[in-house]
Amino acid sequence: MTEQDTRPGPSRRTLLGWGGAGLALGAAVAGGTAAALDLGGEDAGPAAAGGDAVPFHGVHQAGIATPVQDRLHFAAFDVTTTDRAKLIALLKEWTAAAAAMTAGREVGTGAVGDNDELPPDDTGEALGLKPSRLTLTFGIGPGLFEKDGKDRFGLKSRRPEALVDLPPFPGDNLDPARSGGDLCVQACADDPQVAVHAIRNLARIAMGRAAVRWSQLGFGKTSSTTPDAQTPRNMLGFKDGTRNIAGTETDRLDKHVWVGEKDGPAWMAGGSYVVTRRIRMHIETWDRTSLKEQEDVFGRTKAEGAPIGKQREHDEPNLKAMKPDAHVRLAHPDSNSGATILRRGYSFTDGTDGLGRLDAGLFFIAYQRDVRDGFIPVQTRLSRSDALNEYIQHVGSAVFAVPPGVRDKDDWWGRALFA
Amino acid sequence: MTEQDTRPGPSRRTLLGWGGAGLALGAAVAGGTAAALDLGGEDAGPAAAGGDAVPFHGVHQAGIATPVQDRLHFAAFDVTTTDRAKLIALLKEWTAAAAAMTAGREVGTGAVGDNDELPPDDTGEALGLKPSRLTLTFGIGPGLFEKDGKDRFGLKSRRPEALVDLPPFPGDNLDPARSGGDLCVQACADDPQVAVHAIRNLARIAMGRAAVRWSQLGFGKTSSTTPDAQTPRNMLGFKDGTRNIAGTETDRLDKHVWVGEKDGPAWMAGGSYVVTRRIRMHIETWDRTSLKEQEDVFGRTKAEGAPIGKQREHDEPNLKAMKPDAHVRLAHPDSNSGATILRRGYSFTDGTDGLGRLDAGLFFIAYQRDVRDGFIPVQTRLSRSDALNEYIQHVGSAVFAVPPGVRDKDDWWGRALFA
Ligand code: HEM
Ligand code: HEM
Repeated sequence: MTEQDTRPGPSRRTLLGWGGAGLALGAAVAGGTAAALDLGGEDAGPAAAGGDAVPFHGVHQAGIATPVQDRLHFAAFDVTTTDRAKLIALLKEWTAAAAAMTAGREVGTGAVGDNDELPPDDTGEALGLKPSRLTLTFGIGPGLFEKDGKDRFGLKSRRPEALVDLPPFPGDNLDPARSGGDLCVQACADDPQVAVHAIRNLARIAMGRAAVRWSQLGFGKTSSTTPDAQTPRNMLGFKDGTRNIAGTETDRLDKHVWVGEKDGPAWMAGGSYVVTRRIRMHIETWDRTSLKEQEDVFGRTKAEGAPIGKQREHDEPNLKAMKPDAHVRLAHPDSNSGATILRRGYSFTDGTDGLGRLDAGLFFIAYQRDVRDGFIPVQTRLSRSDALNEYIQHVGSAVFAVPPGVRDKDDWWGRALFA
Repeated sequence: MTEQDTRPGPSRRTLLGWGGAGLALGAAVAGGTAAALDLGGEDAGPAAAGGDAVPFHGVHQAGIATPVQDRLHFAAFDVTTTDRAKLIALLKEWTAAAAAMTAGREVGTGAVGDNDELPPDDTGEALGLKPSRLTLTFGIGPGLFEKDGKDRFGLKSRRPEALVDLPPFPGDNLDPARSGGDLCVQACADDPQVAVHAIRNLARIAMGRAAVRWSQLGFGKTSSTTPDAQTPRNMLGFKDGTRNIAGTETDRLDKHVWVGEKDGPAWMAGGSYVVTRRIRMHIETWDRTSLKEQEDVFGRTKAEGAPIGKQREHDEPNLKAMKPDAHVRLAHPDSNSGATILRRGYSFTDGTDGLGRLDAGLFFIAYQRDVRDGFIPVQTRLSRSDALNEYIQHVGSAVFAVPPGVRDKDDWWGRALFA
């Protein structure tokens, strides 16, 4: 191992595993506790100096109100162990690995390791890549609190009231193999290899304790939490995310996204709830639809994204100018007693469906302070009347409680829940 | 339609469909011939001024020896029409659309169109995005020449000898639904939304004449045709594409990749042959393997990518220093009577396999002058003895003749074949 990194600029490679200093640090890190792994911290390591690392520690988890990255790898896990201590150990190891990876470092001693008779700690495919604004956002599904009537981990009494099982909606065609899950990790990054690498290493760490139930790659963001940025377009060709909660609107975030101190339970204060829906689009049907009909369906113009009757994308919508079944009209807070969600979805294309059609659509992700005041009322209305329903079908669904941020090096995902 | 593009810099939006001038140009383009569509040309339009458009016209198709882009969407099509004239019309329309999209323009009059009672010509989701080095590479499968004993389009006698049906290899576990195809289009771009958009619009244009048989998204390149660039890593964490044919090595390209004048048939001169293999990786097994075993499997080190016994990635390999069943030793031209291919594959992750494992691997793509002197001998050796076989399985396979480049605005994909 005499190699040296000759490329300019910071990379995963520069911190761990190469050269004398790197190896010495690697050995220290091999101690394996979360604290040891966080040597360097996300603000101190050379990777962070690259300017594209998102801080992992904080009051809230990153990946919700932080700027939306370009790519997604979302994974839901089934917990396979019945041992509470093993589950806790997993969450600690995951947290340590997540802190390292989001800072642009490798897991443990890296892909080279300090003993070549052992498998490397890190699978290595992100070596040399930048942090790419990787965020890892962790959530807990209803099944962790209770499954098949069993209180699996003594957590039943701690289940948040706001973490309801979603009701069935008209038109749902949910595939159980793409729905649910005891735990979830949302990996967002500007480089898909970095997001895929992160989920894969977490899945590997979970071995014998949790297994991937389903996972979803998203290739293009369909939302924005930074209103000055260009609004991305979804697979139906429309700008998506025009009216969303911006990451800087702390008032609206506190009102609609973050669980408050008084909302309860205490372990969720500063957290949020996420709903994911895999929404298949019948793009072939859509593509045969006239421009006028397409614009009527949304209540916005295709080119500019302006509300019907207005000129510019960010003009205030006049709901009455839209058709009664227009998506934007029905989804708007004014039509749902103020219900407001933070959308953070991604476009997907997963090959073909066996019938000569692309299996493409929107992997919808929404964060909210309470699912009962967020996704459920909006989707109740949409599922009944939305003109868009002719062109889409919900085929996967999940809901998770997203705990608050990991505060410091001694904290870990879900600690307050298990306290 | 009073909107104006306020963002700086060239984009798809600036050329067509907006503002007076844009609309006038749009109307001219709506004439609909390939020639009309190519107004502006790939070197003249504002999109090209962005510097990231790859020229569409040329002696060879782009997407083979041109620098490898970050993302892939590969689609294989079944021709559904039995009418030769309709097939020819499709290929002409495809060529016009490909010329437009690779130049960063929309198909036809764009996503807004000139009549809102009609569906837009372009599905619109790439509006505002840069050309992103999009290349569209077109190929013709064996089935176009003959299927089920039938000479479907009077082309049987024109089938190249080099376009052989691939023999079965030991270990193959091919899924017919992910194999074969009468036509293919390889879309590569730095932005996946641009690659997905291109395939989707070609699929849409094909309606009633050809249908997508299978398609594959690749999220990370695993090869390089520009030796000075950083070599990307595959999902097993190893640098991939170290020893490949560079796009600048015209001698080796002529020897190993481009079909020569004398090779025959005449319509293929300047073309190539592509083999695609969907190769699933058993990453969970790999991840439990020691670093030493991993390095022995390839015959290269993991960190640097150096040949066993050497120091640097680009040092000349000493095959004898490697284990007899090392991948690199067996794949090397010296082990295969000089057989040399140009690799251009991509990593994929398509969710999970229903058994808690990521469905991940390598979508292998190789170009060569003659499949019988390229992929077949190399894969014959690898499939018998490669140490890597314990960790991979070939689950999809296809082969296509890739005609030479589209010369000018009057030329179209496959013209010489139908002449
Ligand atoms: C494939 C399915 C969907 C597509 C293609 C889609 C697309 C869009 C588009 C283009 C807009 C207008 C631009 C914007 O303000 O972002 C929009 C707005 C919105 N959508 Fe959706 N959407 C889908 C599903 C959903 C679902 C399932 C929900 C919630 C249950 C939802 C909630 C909203 C909300 C709250 C707005 C903003 C309304 C406003 O305040 O003006 N959407 N959607
Ligand atoms: C999942 C399957 C595969 C993986 C992970 C893989 C990986 C690699 C790696 C890491 C290298 C060394 C670096 C380099 O020179 O690029 C390599 C070299 C090579 N591979 Fe593969 N490969 C796979 C399948 C194949 C197949 C199917 C073929 C052809 C039938 C092939 C042909 C080659 C060739 C020709 C070389 C260069 C050998 C030399 O000249 O040194 N590989 N591969």
